[in-house]
Amino acid sequence: MRIWQGIFKKRSMRLGLLALAALTASGAADPAVAGENLADIARSVDLVWMLLGGFLVFWMQAGFALVESGFTRAKNAVNIIAKNLMDFALGCPFYFIIGYGLMFGADKLGLIGTSNFALNGVTDMWDIGFFFFQAMFAATAATIVSGAMAERTQFKAYLFYTVFISAFIYPVVGHWIWGGGWLAEKGFLDFAGSTVVHSVGGWAALTGAIFLGPRIGKYTPDGRSKAIPGHNIPLAALGVFILWFGWFGFNGGSTIAATNWNISLVLVTTTLAAAAGTCGALFYSWIRFGKPDIAMALNGALAGLVSITAPAYDVSAVSSLIIGLIGGVLVVAAVEFIDKVLHVDDPVGAVSVHAVCGVWGTIALGLFAESQYGNGVSGLFFGGGLSQLLVQLEGIIVVAVWTIAASAAVFTVAKYLIGLRASREEELKGLDITEHGQEAYAGFEIFSNE
Amino acid sequence: MRIWQGIFKKRSMRLGLLALAALTASGAADPAVAGENLADIARSVDLVWMLLGGFLVFWMQAGFALVESGFTRAKNAVNIIAKNLMDFALGCPFYFIIGYGLMFGADKLGLIGTSNFALNGVTDMWDIGFFFFQAMFAATAATIVSGAMAERTQFKAYLFYTVFISAFIYPVVGHWIWGGGWLAEKGFLDFAGSTVVHSVGGWAALTGAIFLGPRIGKYTPDGRSKAIPGHNIPLAALGVFILWFGWFGFNGGSTIAATNWNISLVLVTTTLAAAAGTCGALFYSWIRFGKPDIAMALNGALAGLVSITAPAYDVSAVSSLIIGLIGGVLVVAAVEFIDKVLHVDDPVGAVSVHAVCGVWGTIALGLFAESQYGNGVSGLFFGGGLSQLLVQLEGIIVVAVWTIAASAAVFTVAKYLIGLRASREEELKGLDITEHGQEAYAGFEIFSNE
Amino acid sequence: MRIWQGIFKKRSMRLGLLALAALTASGAADPAVAGENLADIARSVDLVWMLLGGFLVFWMQAGFALVESGFTRAKNAVNIIAKNLMDFALGCPFYFIIGYGLMFGADKLGLIGTSNFALNGVTDMWDIGFFFFQAMFAATAATIVSGAMAERTQFKAYLFYTVFISAFIYPVVGHWIWGGGWLAEKGFLDFAGSTVVHSVGGWAALTGAIFLGPRIGKYTPDGRSKAIPGHNIPLAALGVFILWFGWFGFNGGSTIAATNWNISLVLVTTTLAAAAGTCGALFYSWIRFGKPDIAMALNGALAGLVSITAPAYDVSAVSSLIIGLIGGVLVVAAVEFIDKVLHVDDPVGAVSVHAVCGVWGTIALGLFAESQYGNGVSGLFFGGGLSQLLVQLEGIIVVAVWTIAASAAVFTVAKYLIGLRASREEELKGLDITEHGQEAYAGFEIFSNE
Repeated sequence: MRIWQGIFKKRSMRLGLLALAALTASGAADPAVAGENLADIARSVDLVWMLLGGFLVFWMQAGFALVESGFTRAKNAVNIIAKNLMDFALGCPFYFIIGYGLMFGADKLGLIGTSNFALNGVTDMWDIGFFFFQAMFAATAATIVSGAMAERTQFKAYLFYTVFISAFIYPVVGHWIWGGGWLAEKGFLDFAGSTVVHSVGGWAALTGAIFLGPRIGKYTPDGRSKAIPGHNIPLAALGVFILWFGWFGFNGGSTIAATNWNISLVLVTTTLAAAAGTCGALFYSWIRFGKPDIAMALNGALAGLVSITAPAYDVSAVSSLIIGLIGGVLVVAAVEFIDKVLHVDDPVGAVSVHAVCGVWGTIALGLFAESQYGNGVSGLFFGGGLSQLLVQLEGIIVVAVWTIAASAAVFTVAKYLIGLRASREEELKGLDITEHGQEAYAGFEIFSNE
Repeated sequence: MRIWQGIFKKRSMRLGLLALAALTASGAADPAVAGENLADIARSVDLVWMLLGGFLVFWMQAGFALVESGFTRAKNAVNIIAKNLMDFALGCPFYFIIGYGLMFGADKLGLIGTSNFALNGVTDMWDIGFFFFQAMFAATAATIVSGAMAERTQFKAYLFYTVFISAFIYPVVGHWIWGGGWLAEKGFLDFAGSTVVHSVGGWAALTGAIFLGPRIGKYTPDGRSKAIPGHNIPLAALGVFILWFGWFGFNGGSTIAATNWNISLVLVTTTLAAAAGTCGALFYSWIRFGKPDIAMALNGALAGLVSITAPAYDVSAVSSLIIGLIGGVLVVAAVEFIDKVLHVDDPVGAVSVHAVCGVWGTIALGLFAESQYGNGVSGLFFGGGLSQLLVQLEGIIVVAVWTIAASAAVFTVAKYLIGLRASREEELKGLDITEHGQEAYAGFEIFSNE
Repeated sequence: MRIWQGIFKKRSMRLGLLALAALTASGAADPAVAGENLADIARSVDLVWMLLGGFLVFWMQAGFALVESGFTRAKNAVNIIAKNLMDFALGCPFYFIIGYGLMFGADKLGLIGTSNFALNGVTDMWDIGFFFFQAMFAATAATIVSGAMAERTQFKAYLFYTVFISAFIYPVVGHWIWGGGWLAEKGFLDFAGSTVVHSVGGWAALTGAIFLGPRIGKYTPDGRSKAIPGHNIPLAALGVFILWFGWFGFNGGSTIAATNWNISLVLVTTTLAAAAGTCGALFYSWIRFGKPDIAMALNGALAGLVSITAPAYDVSAVSSLIIGLIGGVLVVAAVEFIDKVLHVDDPVGAVSVHAVCGVWGTIALGLFAESQYGNGVSGLFFGGGLSQLLVQLEGIIVVAVWTIAASAAVFTVAKYLIGLRASREEELKGLDITEHGQEAYAGFEIFSNE
């Protein structure tokens, strides 16, 4: 009978009946359809909110693709988009088959889940919706890496890596913090994933960029860094707008319930932090370099968003302005430090945005969390206390060590098994032609800006 | 009193009252406002879900515009976007005035609806929301056609055609299957429109491409097919991300109810099929052509989505992976077959994606549908049975015959009344300049890649 | 306890409990979590709807950025996007600190609000969500201005201006009409902001364009207007699709309640008006100029949307077609009049779209509003009556006078304090290089089309 429902409902419209009436009438004994009671309707509202959150987090994939493509050269635009597409297309099935079970499956030691692989045994439609939401988060962690490794990584090696981060590296951290593992038991807090998602992505990105070494021509023999400008700033800017929009689902959806009215506060802190991050990066770059740098301002928006991801639920609106502003300044300083001091070539600033601001956001929760926000969101208090701050620091360090170690292991295997870096000739010609036999902009006159 | 409501509510915020309280107080006797009862609140949740679905399906219009524009040449980019814009802008009013009544109006013979034109007599706000949702679906069927007819169709002729598909060809099929017509009575199942929307669009696209003949230079005198690469792959990729995102509304919204918790399953099967379709097309093209073809991978995502559109509600998550994977392989094979064997010039692969995978998805429902998914979504069963499969095949054939015949009739009239194909000179110069007097990329140096 | 909730809920999933059950159990005494009663669940549904509306209105920021960038030259693409980014990033915090209090704070004289600055004293989560929604509207008003002032305004001066419109000029109008001020008391109606948002933006845009004077080369010495074509029509088209999509939140969300089922009607009138506006502009430009002008058709879509913003809630579906169609014709006529007769250089047509159609929409509400739509949305009545029409006209005039006067004051200060217009050399070279030291499309061969 249930397989007839789709059509039945559509037909019922024609007959002038309420679809709802049809549903509740037939649905009384159907566990997949809300019954005539308050808890079921509330659950439906929460489900809508969580699934909407999932839609928006999926949409962030497009944002990452455009940011990474726009901030790099035209000759690699197809390749970087391909990597963004495939880390979702490959990562999502692997998260389904393996990762989700490791992350949210049952365990006794707090180290790793060991059930629910391929949703085996999961029959409740709420839990299936929760998987949908979580799969989008896993994809976000994976996709951060491609930006730092842009313009010089072999396509095959990237596909190899992306399976491991989606199926194993990310889910293990996720289990420790969101799956009831040992860090959760210790009281580590990370509302929507400054550490779980962004730091994991950021540390893996750092590891990858170090393994690869800089792009040809990035550093002169005497050690000066040369700017390699991105080929399409409007595309990158659109990517940032997409990410900002998608973050409403990332942070807002992380209550996984709309009956939790704090979603209002979460959205306000998310918005204000992103705005303040943009301002912070713009004005700091203006002071530092003499001109308002728009690539920096765009990264500043992302910096604000990453920074507020952990504390969005637990800080006041005024605190969110401060957290975001610091994040925006921090990202400019970090980009310069990583490029000019560390000589690590991160073409899009992924490490600065996701690792550095991920750490900052996780600390900021310890500094700014307050229990009073419910009675006045505009106050500024330091409420978390020292013990909370120490737990936050412990989590940050452990996650960094784990992610760097595990990523380094995977990259090492990839290096010897497949080869990590594209050849010199491929890199100079561009990966679009050499890897895919395709041009991003057929017909356009483009100078290779090498 | 009601026309004051908008302002009243906004004002009530200032006074610190709940908008809700105001509404339910005044709304007890107002049929457009939910009362203080459970069924009304449940109806509101379902309305939110259905309307959100409509938003997302509208957004797919942007996706089609970008995919079709990105996969064709720069000299026709304005024209193809214009066609995508106008098939919505013209098609939607015509669907309102004529199509919706044909599709969902009352009838006795199961052939065609004959009431509710221009929403005449439709007063229930749920039904009006249902029209909104359905109008977006009608626009999707229409817009599929422009891609296959790209780069050589007269603008006027396309406008002429698009009125007929929105107002007549699509609604008739819609009535048969979703409007309670004869195929519905026979038990034909198509949850969100692999056949109703995508096959109709795909068959019409095939008919149009055949009527037009190939673009100048597409086939050499000795019958070899030459690739004509698209001018903007990042734009096309963004289009695919938009379509994927929009498909959450297309499939998810098709329950037209969030109190039906199977929406969770629908979203999981939709996501996994799209991911598997992408992988299928990427790896099959890699094996077949020696390089991972990203245009194919992007079409593979769409192939997976079209394939799961009919069965999304009725198959397990594991089945959705198989259905999507087959769709992804199928689209690569079909693109090659239609191009190299049939010598039909379909610049964006619309026929392969929408007709071929639309058929596959409709068959797949017959093969993989199971009544047990509620108790275990990770099992793989063949549940539909042979009789269901035969009904599915009958529907597929009848819809193909109807759409091809009706489209052929409209194109024939257009050919003699207006002229279907642009002149040789127009085609060589590009339709942007000749039809609209506008360039897509003023100032850019672009080689006509003829 | 509350700061543990995020993690608790995620953990509860693992244990197979309903998040909901956890919430309602612990939430009984928690004002931020819905209790086990109907009003609370209804409130949650309304909150989801309002916040979703806010998401979509935020997304319109991306639309404005792309439309304004696509319709202007490549050499200013970074700059115009920077302005769109920063009017949100700066405007939003200022609206938070000052504007919202002026708009929705308590007052006695109906002139201006004087409380709730920085959300001080605002503790109800509904009210905080309402701020989120309203902040997005404020950003829309601000961002309209940048288009009319494109390609010749100093970045600093624009930042200066944008603070004032977000913090002061817009909120004052908002208070008069939506904050319970004197125009609201008089019965002025503006459902979603044809006047409050779009006219305010449009009049400020006009003032700015007049203050600046035309771009170099726009008018020949003998007074003929020269077309300066936009550099990226696909980008601009995508911007229009984004705006249309976002408008579903702009108009649909303006009920701030999904328990008000008239949202269905609002979305239907919004869609049909936009479609009709597109058709009106396309066919009128076709007749007038001999070719179907796609830039005009795109502006026609926006014209239809602005026109229906005030009356969306109060007119029939058939009326919305007429209102949109007139808006579409009007925008083409207005663009020509402002350019060729007034010699005001508005590069993207912002004044025609937002001021002219904003006025038309506000009048249209007076002409077409009907109390009977609940019982038949397809009828066409003139229901508003003469007295309503006179109130509408009064509001239109007062808002125009206020906005022009206040904007002129701010631009005058900016002119003498900072300098409003870029230097001749900067304008010729392009603001991307001179203001930001960045190129939009590094590597592409682009001719400065001066």
